[in-house]
Amino acid sequence: MLSKNTVKFIKSLHQKKYRTESGKFFVEGEKSVIEVLQSDFKVHLLLVTPEFSLKYASLIHELGVEVIQATPNQLEQVGQYQSNDAALAVVEMKPNHAFQPNKGELILALDAVRDPGNLGTILRIADWYGIQKLIFSTHTADFYNPKVIQASMGSFTRVQFFYGDLVASFQTWKLPVYGAFLEGTSVHELSNPEPGILLLGNESQGISKEVEKFVTNKVTIPSFGGAESLNVAIASAIMCDNFKRLLHS
Amino acid sequence: MLSKNTVKFIKSLHQKKYRTESGKFFVEGEKSVIEVLQSDFKVHLLLVTPEFSLKYASLIHELGVEVIQATPNQLEQVGQYQSNDAALAVVEMKPNHAFQPNKGELILALDAVRDPGNLGTILRIADWYGIQKLIFSTHTADFYNPKVIQASMGSFTRVQFFYGDLVASFQTWKLPVYGAFLEGTSVHELSNPEPGILLLGNESQGISKEVEKFVTNKVTIPSFGGAESLNVAIASAIMCDNFKRLLHS
Repeated sequence: MLSKNTVKFIKSLHQKKYRTESGKFFVEGEKSVIEVLQSDFKVHLLLVTPEFSLKYASLIHELGVEVIQATPNQLEQVGQYQSNDAALAVVEMKPNHAFQPNKGELILALDAVRDPGNLGTILRIADWYGIQKLIFSTHTADFYNPKVIQASMGSFTRVQFFYGDLVASFQTWKLPVYGAFLEGTSVHELSNPEPGILLLGNESQGISKEVEKFVTNKVTIPSFGGAESLNVAIASAIMCDNFKRLLHS
Repeated sequence: MLSKNTVKFIKSLHQKKYRTESGKFFVEGEKSVIEVLQSDFKVHLLLVTPEFSLKYASLIHELGVEVIQATPNQLEQVGQYQSNDAALAVVEMKPNHAFQPNKGELILALDAVRDPGNLGTILRIADWYGIQKLIFSTHTADFYNPKVIQASMGSFTRVQFFYGDLVASFQTWKLPVYGAFLEGTSVHELSNPEPGILLLGNESQGISKEVEKFVTNKVTIPSFGGAESLNVAIASAIMCDNFKRLLHS
């Protein structure tokens, strides 16, 4: 049975403060819950409807995770989905470990992308393009925000990331840093770029002055019309698409 | 002074039914209101804060439009913005006229894209890539929905569009129809495509069976990772980017 304390605990995970304190976050909906169960994340607790527990009985049994039966109404009360007739998982956050790029790998770096919907969409794009490693400045939205998890459509399970000082990492890695600016070399005119770091900046301020100094190549998405800018998730997608095309042709 | 009737009227424009009935919609915020005032849309009524009316006194005077003073609080009550310290314009909808493509022009076609945020983002992308004409199936979100207007960031003023039967238009225009599918020719491998129609489908169902029959070229965005799909606005951006690159190189 779903206790008042568990309800209170899951509701607290809507706030970053309590996620950080407990080291846990939650994942909602059939598709995302199944993906997190099959990932290397450690599931702490699983709330399931009778339908979900029947449909995935063997998977749930195999994992040996604590399971609590819940109604769709209860799932909707504790989570953020307006409609959830499947499941909600409470999951352990991963330690914030720095990574090392592999040779030939593309890395995505975000400098203060603040909107959780944008961050989640960018995770999905990175996953689509096989970009496995992302680095976020500490002012970037929280990876474990329920809106990030939702917008990533399960892709949060397939990327590696860390929050840290972009400049320090760029200096350690000694890779080309391709920063997306409104001015620079058109991504349509690049030829034979070296693999490196694709860097995108904040929704309104772009890449910060401090980080800009460490950009080795300013690149831009060519404009043919009247719009002044593109959304940062859209720009990330176009950067990834062009670099993947150039590196694989 | 802002009358109760005007408040009631603007609030009614949140609903498509009343927009259609009155032939009017509304536009909020400094940037979008300025863009609509400078566009070929006919502004019916302008609600302005004292700051906005001072800053744009000559522009407002020139246009000879009916102006009502309002507080930010009043603007937020009638509109959908959580914060609006500038202006709100009530604007006349344009007649739903069919268009003819020019030679060499790219057209964007949407088959039942239902989310207003996606449609608005797609308008902004089309505008960025200089795509001026869009055709929408009748099941596509309403262009005049306040969320579409907001997400388009002013680009709604720079595109031409009509709602109608996609198949009938494709048959009249006799242009290649490049439909975005999860399978097809990779957009990275296309060479020398003829200009024509870029077609994108519904968020979950994709392009409908009926419209699919009239697709001359199935194209796909190459995947390198684990995500199953891309958001339709992201896919539109990547299609536009690749076609613009191919047509301009």
